[in-house]
Amino acid sequence: MNIRIALAQINSTVGDLAGNQEKIADYIQQARDHKADIVAFPELAISGYPPEDLLYKGHFVKDNLRVLKSLIKETDGLTAIVGFVAADQNKNLYNAAAVIHRGRLIDVVYKQDLPNYGVFDEKRYFKPSKAFHLYSLGQNFFSVNICEDIWKDDGLAVLQAKAGSQLLINISSSPYHHGKVKLREGMLRRRAKQTKAFIAYANLIGGQDELVFDGGSLILNPKGEILFRARQFSEDLLLADLEIPPSRKIKAAPKSKVIALKNAEIREDKTAIKRHFYPPLEAPAEIYQALVLGTRDYVLKNGFQKVVVGLSGGIDSSLVAVVACDAIGKDNVVGVSLPSQYSSQETRSDAKSLADNLGIQFISVPIEGIFNTYLFALRQEFAGRGFDVTEENLQARIRGNILMALSNKFGWLVLTTGNKSEIAVGYCTLYGDMSGGFAVIKDVPKTKVYELARYRNQKGSKPLIPESVLNRPPTAELRENQKDEDSLPPYETLDPILKSYIENHSSFKKMLKKYRGKEEGVLKKVISLVDKSEYKRRQAPPGVKITSRAFGKDWRLPITNKYKEF
Amino acid sequence: MNIRIALAQINSTVGDLAGNQEKIADYIQQARDHKADIVAFPELAISGYPPEDLLYKGHFVKDNLRVLKSLIKETDGLTAIVGFVAADQNKNLYNAAAVIHRGRLIDVVYKQDLPNYGVFDEKRYFKPSKAFHLYSLGQNFFSVNICEDIWKDDGLAVLQAKAGSQLLINISSSPYHHGKVKLREGMLRRRAKQTKAFIAYANLIGGQDELVFDGGSLILNPKGEILFRARQFSEDLLLADLEIPPSRKIKAAPKSKVIALKNAEIREDKTAIKRHFYPPLEAPAEIYQALVLGTRDYVLKNGFQKVVVGLSGGIDSSLVAVVACDAIGKDNVVGVSLPSQYSSQETRSDAKSLADNLGIQFISVPIEGIFNTYLFALRQEFAGRGFDVTEENLQARIRGNILMALSNKFGWLVLTTGNKSEIAVGYCTLYGDMSGGFAVIKDVPKTKVYELARYRNQKGSKPLIPESVLNRPPTAELRENQKDEDSLPPYETLDPILKSYIENHSSFKKMLKKYRGKEEGVLKKVISLVDKSEYKRRQAPPGVKITSRAFGKDWRLPITNKYKEF
Repeated sequence: MNIRIALAQINSTVGDLAGNQEKIADYIQQARDHKADIVAFPELAISGYPPEDLLYKGHFVKDNLRVLKSLIKETDGLTAIVGFVAADQNKNLYNAAAVIHRGRLIDVVYKQDLPNYGVFDEKRYFKPSKAFHLYSLGQNFFSVNICEDIWKDDGLAVLQAKAGSQLLINISSSPYHHGKVKLREGMLRRRAKQTKAFIAYANLIGGQDELVFDGGSLILNPKGEILFRARQFSEDLLLADLEIPPSRKIKAAPKSKVIALKNAEIREDKTAIKRHFYPPLEAPAEIYQALVLGTRDYVLKNGFQKVVVGLSGGIDSSLVAVVACDAIGKDNVVGVSLPSQYSSQETRSDAKSLADNLGIQFISVPIEGIFNTYLFALRQEFAGRGFDVTEENLQARIRGNILMALSNKFGWLVLTTGNKSEIAVGYCTLYGDMSGGFAVIKDVPKTKVYELARYRNQKGSKPLIPESVLNRPPTAELRENQKDEDSLPPYETLDPILKSYIENHSSFKKMLKKYRGKEEGVLKKVISLVDKSEYKRRQAPPGVKITSRAFGKDWRLPITNKYKEF
Repeated sequence: MNIRIALAQINSTVGDLAGNQEKIADYIQQARDHKADIVAFPELAISGYPPEDLLYKGHFVKDNLRVLKSLIKETDGLTAIVGFVAADQNKNLYNAAAVIHRGRLIDVVYKQDLPNYGVFDEKRYFKPSKAFHLYSLGQNFFSVNICEDIWKDDGLAVLQAKAGSQLLINISSSPYHHGKVKLREGMLRRRAKQTKAFIAYANLIGGQDELVFDGGSLILNPKGEILFRARQFSEDLLLADLEIPPSRKIKAAPKSKVIALKNAEIREDKTAIKRHFYPPLEAPAEIYQALVLGTRDYVLKNGFQKVVVGLSGGIDSSLVAVVACDAIGKDNVVGVSLPSQYSSQETRSDAKSLADNLGIQFISVPIEGIFNTYLFALRQEFAGRGFDVTEENLQARIRGNILMALSNKFGWLVLTTGNKSEIAVGYCTLYGDMSGGFAVIKDVPKTKVYELARYRNQKGSKPLIPESVLNRPPTAELRENQKDEDSLPPYETLDPILKSYIENHSSFKKMLKKYRGKEEGVLKKVISLVDKSEYKRRQAPPGVKITSRAFGKDWRLPITNKYKEF
């Protein structure tokens, strides 16, 4: 017998209860139109994920329950599984899934394993619960679990399979980072083989502050083969017919554990559907799409239409401008050149060429005059002291001010252009190049910035980023003949050290061993720079997380911190 | 028989393992010199509290264990209870207390109830454990528990008392907010009465990023009376002789639960000591001391010597300058006046008078010239558009830049001067008046700013803040004849609304009810302003938490958030 399952991979928005309700109702209708027996939505689809301290507002939780109540009425003719926030009489909250069958709420499943590491704070809000049921549909059993509960070898999903479940429906809001897809799919393959059950995995898509959810919902058979796969970084309705043999346990199952889906006949009038299978994206494309979606959703979900980017003629701002155009369209992107006496003719003209290639509005506001006025105003205080980082930062801050002035005057969101390598070692100016609402490549190491720029240049009909931008040695152009390598190790050396220190929390000793005792000075310098730049990162705008540890909620180092390894 | 107990209320620093070790060893010696039988240190005294993601560094945990090992050797002749990070073979971490007796580690107590709400993230790092022992000393039993484990009516401390403990030693790092002392002492009184045990409560003091620990360590008798009380906001060694009657359970106690402190004779050669009792501070003094300690520790623990404050002639910057002088001394505070064409003669001269009263270095850098240069540079883009918030923000940002330039040139830390009311409703400029390393009065509502200013003026031999500053209607002076009340409700109206909305997460409906249907427009406006200013707060510097919910780790609202109550 065929069960037709629909995985509604939607882009819900945190707090947008009415909008999420409408979207869920729409996808239920689509699933019904396609004669699905079951439709599953992502984790916390009603509230959006993660709702964070909105959960501390009792009225928010009540409003979310009201939405659930309305949605129950929309489920004529099928079974819908919808993520929401449940509350008990003692005001304990649960990360929950409503199992709704033909207009009736027949069960609520609670998440048991609440992640409280990395970017997750679920124990701050939710209580766990071990209870679960099986649902009988025709001659089959299925059950529902939430996100983390399928990740562990002895988790709730495994218990459900042991109790007789043949189909494990997991609803997730699993945040993206590069490498996560492989991790997730490997885990699901193992779980399917271990439990000898089908797995239907419904994931969220969309951007939420620093997080991007990549979708890529899946259906696996008990051999651990991926039969169906939804799109990544885009809404999708994955439809699949599963041939599940009749359960041999159907009569032996403990009655207390089973809820029969009454009046549920598997629809027999289905016509065959095309196999829904999108192959996964490869590395640079995957990361690039994450940046595009994260940027688009931050801009649009926060009510902005246009963005403004300072174009230095360098690789970082070039990539950000290109991502912005792909995210919200070239007519909504403004490029601003802010040259000083230290800007070369090459970088000025590269900024202009990029804007021309993209076809975006281009503004040029030279900063030299303003810079000189500051120096004049401070002439007494600074008398007898030479040019130092003060004057460098001042230029960056003048640029930040001009971008913010344009933002204030025209309602454009400022996109900042700093990369992860810079932000890690503090090679960036607070209130200068760090000024802005969203930091597109905040979590992208410099070497990967180049990789993404080359990828995007190759992808289009013609290269958008001028070749000279890709070939010029990186420079901040804040003093004469400045090069990044005057202050920092080459990025090819720096980035792997940063990855060890940040993503793996490696110790100095361990890294020194890896480098066989060489590079001691470089390692010490990098560690010191990272440690002492914490105060800058604390005031940085959010940006898209693409690595296993970004400078966001998954990085909670104290500013006041006297720990020294050497 | 008298047990002499010492509570070592120290100011440890996060990550400063060597410094904390030295301090702990020093206080052990002091306790020994005073013939104490037991000395107790605060929770996580070795690592500092809260160590946050330093705990993700395996080498940090190992280094902390090495410090414990060294300290064990320092405990000749007494029993020391020291907070540290314990680890098991599976790399699980525990918030733990070492019970060290005369050179030997005789037990480790693990925290059971791990707070994971408000500013706390302990479940992110630690595992709980229920195991505990009683320690027999002479004819008495005592036991040890950590912070939260004494807060619940059925917590670990209660179990320990039920098992026969006559003295509950609790080591805490309990963060301050106004009202916390009452809450804490009320709880301890109830617990003493409930358990019929003595309670010795050793608390941390010091500032750590946004948190201040207030000390005020206590000893209560089984009637719930506070017998001894340490200083607040200052290091202290509380010494007390407790007359505890011999335990009737001493022979009946389950052997597995009891660890005898061998070779421990209660010293009989003690001479009487003066009763250690400092009455608690009253409201404005208590908050003021929290600001002073929080500021001092942020500045000094982060390696700064001097600070710089922009003096507008208004109440906020005046209070911040006074706090700064009380924190680190007038010779380390620089005041900067940054007048524009909108600055009145009164505010200019008030800024100067304040600096004179304080005896601090005073610099004046007019910003009008710089402001005009910006307007000139942007004349084409802004052509045909009037003066709006852009020009207001620009002035604030010029001021921010100048303060940061002075900071960069001279190594001074910039203290920002925004109050909680402003930051709540977004009446502040990102990269403008929000620029700086530490936001002293970030959590102080405007009405309380006045209260604190008056309190401080009365306390000294002469008022430091000019009377005109206290009497002038608040103004940002960013346009002609501007008053805060042009944009905002009066602060007497605003502050209670903000308290309900922020500290209690009250709903619009509930607040409207409280106001009996009046003030609907004001309520809606305030809620909207708070909601839409989240992005600004995310980029704000840290500041001292003094309320039950500050805009810090205890406020985790999403920026992208479409929740609307009306």
